[in-house]
Amino acid sequence: MQSFQAPNRILMGPGPSDVSERVLKALSQQTVGHLDPTFVSLMDEIKTLLQYAFQTKNELTIPVSAPGSSGMETCFMNLVEPGDKVLICINGVFGMRMKEVAIRAGALVETVEFEWGEAVDPVRVNEVLAAQSDIKILAFVHAETSTGVSTDAKALCAIAQEHNCLSIVDAVTSLGGTELRVDDWGIDAIYSGTQKCLSCIPGLSPVSFSAKAVEKIKQRTTKNFSWFLDLTLVMDYWGEGAKRTYHHTAPVNSLYALHESLLILKEEGLEAAWERHALHNKALVAGLDALGVDMLVDADIRLPQLNAVKIPEGVNDAEVRSTLLQQYDLEIGAGLGKFAGNAWRIGLMGNGCSKKNVLFCLSSLGAVLNEKGHDCDTDKAIALAEQVYG
Amino acid sequence: MQSFQAPNRILMGPGPSDVSERVLKALSQQTVGHLDPTFVSLMDEIKTLLQYAFQTKNELTIPVSAPGSSGMETCFMNLVEPGDKVLICINGVFGMRMKEVAIRAGALVETVEFEWGEAVDPVRVNEVLAAQSDIKILAFVHAETSTGVSTDAKALCAIAQEHNCLSIVDAVTSLGGTELRVDDWGIDAIYSGTQKCLSCIPGLSPVSFSAKAVEKIKQRTTKNFSWFLDLTLVMDYWGEGAKRTYHHTAPVNSLYALHESLLILKEEGLEAAWERHALHNKALVAGLDALGVDMLVDADIRLPQLNAVKIPEGVNDAEVRSTLLQQYDLEIGAGLGKFAGNAWRIGLMGNGCSKKNVLFCLSSLGAVLNEKGHDCDTDKAIALAEQVYG
Repeated sequence: MQSFQAPNRILMGPGPSDVSERVLKALSQQTVGHLDPTFVSLMDEIKTLLQYAFQTKNELTIPVSAPGSSGMETCFMNLVEPGDKVLICINGVFGMRMKEVAIRAGALVETVEFEWGEAVDPVRVNEVLAAQSDIKILAFVHAETSTGVSTDAKALCAIAQEHNCLSIVDAVTSLGGTELRVDDWGIDAIYSGTQKCLSCIPGLSPVSFSAKAVEKIKQRTTKNFSWFLDLTLVMDYWGEGAKRTYHHTAPVNSLYALHESLLILKEEGLEAAWERHALHNKALVAGLDALGVDMLVDADIRLPQLNAVKIPEGVNDAEVRSTLLQQYDLEIGAGLGKFAGNAWRIGLMGNGCSKKNVLFCLSSLGAVLNEKGHDCDTDKAIALAEQVYG
Repeated sequence: MQSFQAPNRILMGPGPSDVSERVLKALSQQTVGHLDPTFVSLMDEIKTLLQYAFQTKNELTIPVSAPGSSGMETCFMNLVEPGDKVLICINGVFGMRMKEVAIRAGALVETVEFEWGEAVDPVRVNEVLAAQSDIKILAFVHAETSTGVSTDAKALCAIAQEHNCLSIVDAVTSLGGTELRVDDWGIDAIYSGTQKCLSCIPGLSPVSFSAKAVEKIKQRTTKNFSWFLDLTLVMDYWGEGAKRTYHHTAPVNSLYALHESLLILKEEGLEAAWERHALHNKALVAGLDALGVDMLVDADIRLPQLNAVKIPEGVNDAEVRSTLLQQYDLEIGAGLGKFAGNAWRIGLMGNGCSKKNVLFCLSSLGAVLNEKGHDCDTDKAIALAEQVYG
């Protein structure tokens, strides 16, 4: 056995996305202790930077020391007490996962379901909440990674507030890629991942909780099933001031990387990052159209950072993806759940959302499709994408 | 706000320990997808290397994608069904934490408690198990990080087997530092951390489960409270063969680092690593004695990798640690729990367990103690340590 030599992939799947040299350099600095004063200052900066990324003043805004799925679990395990009624909107894999996680946390789960590729409809959600006044929490996915669909989080959170519900929002794929305003929209609990539009390494889950959510957590009469994710304990380590009580050993180096990736986002500016994602998406879509590759999601609810596309007829899914990876070092994503075998997911996330990547994806995909018998005009695709850039 | 510049600390606390350049270099390679074939091969190698480190043939031997505390939770959440009676041995902070985690998992917890600084006594454990035949699981800490005490895991696991109990063993601080043989000793479930004697970055928790433990997990009639830690799901991603079902996004770069740190352990050889820890401990203890710094744990149960020492009378705990950190970039650990304020914890773990670190610790600590009014002979301490090295 030998030291691992990672290949130089271009990551245009559903995440992880391309991590920049700056972030990798920050990551590989010498490890310090998790109670070192320099590290405690770093934690404060990370909180401030996360508050910026989430657009919130929430004091409880921290990275959970585990991947996005554990951020989901952090929200449900802390906010649900056994017997609480929770309404979960399902329009893809991650809504389904929310249901599973909520049930395990002891919730009585109601669901409202939508077709894959469609957004959550606020009108239907409003009807359910109006009919069942005992629902305490509304949960939905802002950016459904399995379908590439964006849901109107602002409208849904307003409805939740009208019906006196807390809201739990999955922003794993939206944070840093599309508009997201935790305070303005009145989101009570939100979780994300580091490996999507932040282009940090995978393994951490930024979360944020409103004062109302924190109040519910503090008022619990039952203990959280998870000691590791219990925010009443985690707060003593991540909280303000001198407390900094040891809870678990923080993933020090990963937090170096998160700090740097958030700094990069701050330097660019959130709005500028959102605009960049929209621009490159436009170019990609123009090019894909010329390749005869159709989008699966309508333009008005399409996530710029994650594009579900229809696999052209007669083309072998796995063969194309494997050829792209082997010959071009390019990763695009397979379909997930109901979309498995029918769709590819092409990511344009964070550091990987660039003109270079758009053009490379179009030329590589065009070449491989032609090689596999699907005639397409790669030059035209490139030209149409270039036209978008002007 | 600027990019974080990590100071170059020498980490001789209770972990994280000094991470080698080799591991940091592996860590900072470009991120690949968590389903990339090269990454899947890496996962296989990590499993094989972990089996070596744990001395086991257990198929279910994997790193949990979160810190050691979540490894503890993985063991209890998967093996305990609500109502199961569990006996937990408590001789420090981490036994107490086991109790807390087990209760949340639904266990009926019995405890057998020992003084801080003492080992778990197999005779007393045997008595309790003999008296209560409905106990299903025995749990204890092999290397208690809060006190620096080693407990006889071999004897305890034999007793567990006699009484038809599964065993859960905390090996956070022992793995790679002192003798540990999962198969020979009949351990059913074990968890560790990466940031102690493996000298990898913090954030992962290697675990291993015997066939008997896996059987119990598969036979559960209730669902694990945690979706993220549910091994019946995790197995489909980490399991043999082509399955590799997506569960959560693996912490790719951290796993690069773990692979490299395990490779370093394999190259040295487990027995050689254990001997190295014993040797440098002997030198450190000889030197500390000359400084007038007494050990808190008897030699026969003392962990070489973690030395709890008595803070000399009249010396200010925080002031000495802070001076060591500011003037010498040397981190030693504070006391934890009952030992807070009375003890320091000096770690000699993995890559940080070296002659260089032993001598540096003795000279720095000697200098600071003298500066703070505690007369001691640093030259003699160094000479006595050197004598051990011959």
